[in-house]
Amino acid sequence: MRLKPLGDRVVVKVIQAEEVTKGGVILPGTAKEKPQQGEVVAVGTGEYIDGKKVELEVKVGDRVIFSKYAGTEVKLDGEEYLLLRESDILAIIE
Amino acid sequence: MRLKPLGDRVVVKVIQAEEVTKGGVILPGTAKEKPQQGEVVAVGTGEYIDGKKVELEVKVGDRVIFSKYAGTEVKLDGEEYLLLRESDILAIIE
Amino acid sequence: MRLKPLGDRVVVKVIQAEEVTKGGVILPGTAKEKPQQGEVVAVGTGEYIDGKKVELEVKVGDRVIFSKYAGTEVKLDGEEYLLLRESDILAIIE
Amino acid sequence: MRLKPLGDRVVVKVIQAEEVTKGGVILPGTAKEKPQQGEVVAVGTGEYIDGKKVELEVKVGDRVIFSKYAGTEVKLDGEEYLLLRESDILAIIE
Amino acid sequence: MRLKPLGDRVVVKVIQAEEVTKGGVILPGTAKEKPQQGEVVAVGTGEYIDGKKVELEVKVGDRVIFSKYAGTEVKLDGEEYLLLRESDILAIIE
Amino acid sequence: MRLKPLGDRVVVKVIQAEEVTKGGVILPGTAKEKPQQGEVVAVGTGEYIDGKKVELEVKVGDRVIFSKYAGTEVKLDGEEYLLLRESDILAIIE
Amino acid sequence: MRLKPLGDRVVVKVIQAEEVTKGGVILPGTAKEKPQQGEVVAVGTGEYIDGKKVELEVKVGDRVIFSKYAGTEVKLDGEEYLLLRESDILAIIE
Repeated sequence: MRLKPLGDRVVVKVIQAEEVTKGGVILPGTAKEKPQQGEVVAVGTGEYIDGKKVELEVKVGDRVIFSKYAGTEVKLDGEEYLLLRESDILAIIE
Repeated sequence: MRLKPLGDRVVVKVIQAEEVTKGGVILPGTAKEKPQQGEVVAVGTGEYIDGKKVELEVKVGDRVIFSKYAGTEVKLDGEEYLLLRESDILAIIE
Repeated sequence: MRLKPLGDRVVVKVIQAEEVTKGGVILPGTAKEKPQQGEVVAVGTGEYIDGKKVELEVKVGDRVIFSKYAGTEVKLDGEEYLLLRESDILAIIE
Repeated sequence: MRLKPLGDRVVVKVIQAEEVTKGGVILPGTAKEKPQQGEVVAVGTGEYIDGKKVELEVKVGDRVIFSKYAGTEVKLDGEEYLLLRESDILAIIE
Repeated sequence: MRLKPLGDRVVVKVIQAEEVTKGGVILPGTAKEKPQQGEVVAVGTGEYIDGKKVELEVKVGDRVIFSKYAGTEVKLDGEEYLLLRESDILAIIE
Repeated sequence: MRLKPLGDRVVVKVIQAEEVTKGGVILPGTAKEKPQQGEVVAVGTGEYIDGKKVELEVKVGDRVIFSKYAGTEVKLDGEEYLLLRESDILAIIE
Repeated sequence: MRLKPLGDRVVVKVIQAEEVTKGGVILPGTAKEKPQQGEVVAVGTGEYIDGKKVELEVKVGDRVIFSKYAGTEVKLDGEEYLLLRESDILAIIE
């Protein structure tokens, strides 16, 4: 059982804050919006930009950061996922 | 008697939460927006994107998840349906 | 005396709720937006989409459902009509 | 002395409600927006749609209905006119 | 010393209400927006519409009516002017 | 040390009100928005309009008027500048 | 470990106010929005403008000023960064 996102949407497996600290990115406790980390597990078929379908920039397996308040939560086979638009993804961590 | 949605609209037969649990997707009780499941029973003729008519990505028979607050309810021959825009559909469950 | 709608507008003769029940579509008493039924009696010349005039999808004689709060009421020769944009029409009932 | 409207604007001579009743269109006392009638006395040179200038659909002499709250009133040589955008016109009465 | 408006802007010399009455246009005391009159004294180089620069429709010397609340006031060499976008101009008085 | 504005932005050296009066433009004390004067000291590389990069209309050295509340203040080497979008500039004073 | 921003986003290393004063730009204590300084450490692959991908104007190493309230903070390997859209950058300091 798999989620196939539509258009410019991606499915992300959220990486919890404790794991994040080990991974090297610590999100400071300021007033600014705090991003979250996750791993891309599925990507949509792309987005229409001025009449041409354009593939998404993120790929399955990318570790990404995104806005904390973006997206819709889904639990599938006991695992929690987040459905995001690619535009909610800020950067890929390499 | 059938509903033929216009443009980028689709007709979805909602799958109630009890059935969903059996099907493997459980929607957790958090503050985030909770998606709903359904089966696509009719799709519109497509959407104009930069002057060209583009077919919808979802097909009749697809099991989809969508925002809980999206769409318009219609009861036809005793069955309840939801009229959604394709952009309200988050992902197809395969 | 006839109404000729402009652009993407259509003239619809509203079918009252009592008649609707006989016709097979019952609109349930929920919190969601309740659509109304009607018959298309006139259609505009179409809409400009990226520089090309595109005919409307609905035709005269179509039985359609649309949002309850859409459009402008007009009484012509004792009959009540509704002037809608095509985008307010959700689906054709076949 | 004449008004030459710009772009997609038209000048309409409003037909008062009493006259309207004689003419066959009665606007019912409901909560919905009530349209007004008038006669087109001048039309703009047209509207740019995707780079091409497109003539207006209404012509001088057309009897039209439009939203009650649309437009700007002007009195010229003792006569009252309304300056509307064509998009505020709902339909032509034939 | 002259004002050269940018893009789709025009410089208008406002004609006060007293003068307007003599000229034949009287703006009635209703709840609707009341337009003002003026004479165009300078026009911008035009507006980009879908990639092409398009000249303005109003010319220097045109007597125009425009929304009372539009534009920005400037006093130059003791004279008061108004800087408007062409879209704030409703019609030319001929 | 110089500011190089991006895209359709310009750097303006504000001319204070006292100097403005000498220069002939007096901004009256009305309820309408009062423009400010300044001299353009740097311009961006231009703006993309329908796929083509278009040069700005204002040039370095132009004396311009702009909305009082537009832009972002910057102090560079003791001098105060304003970073504006070209669309915030109303007219060039010649 | 590196951040690779998506689309029109850039990663900026913020330069604190104390350092800024030495560098010559002092942000005055007025009611207007105060910009911040930083150095660009990574840029996205560009932005789609009317169907063509266009490279960003800022380059890695540029010293830039941007709105104080723009962007999202990220801490990576103990260093604090800001993820901005290029349109939040006002100017390059040369």
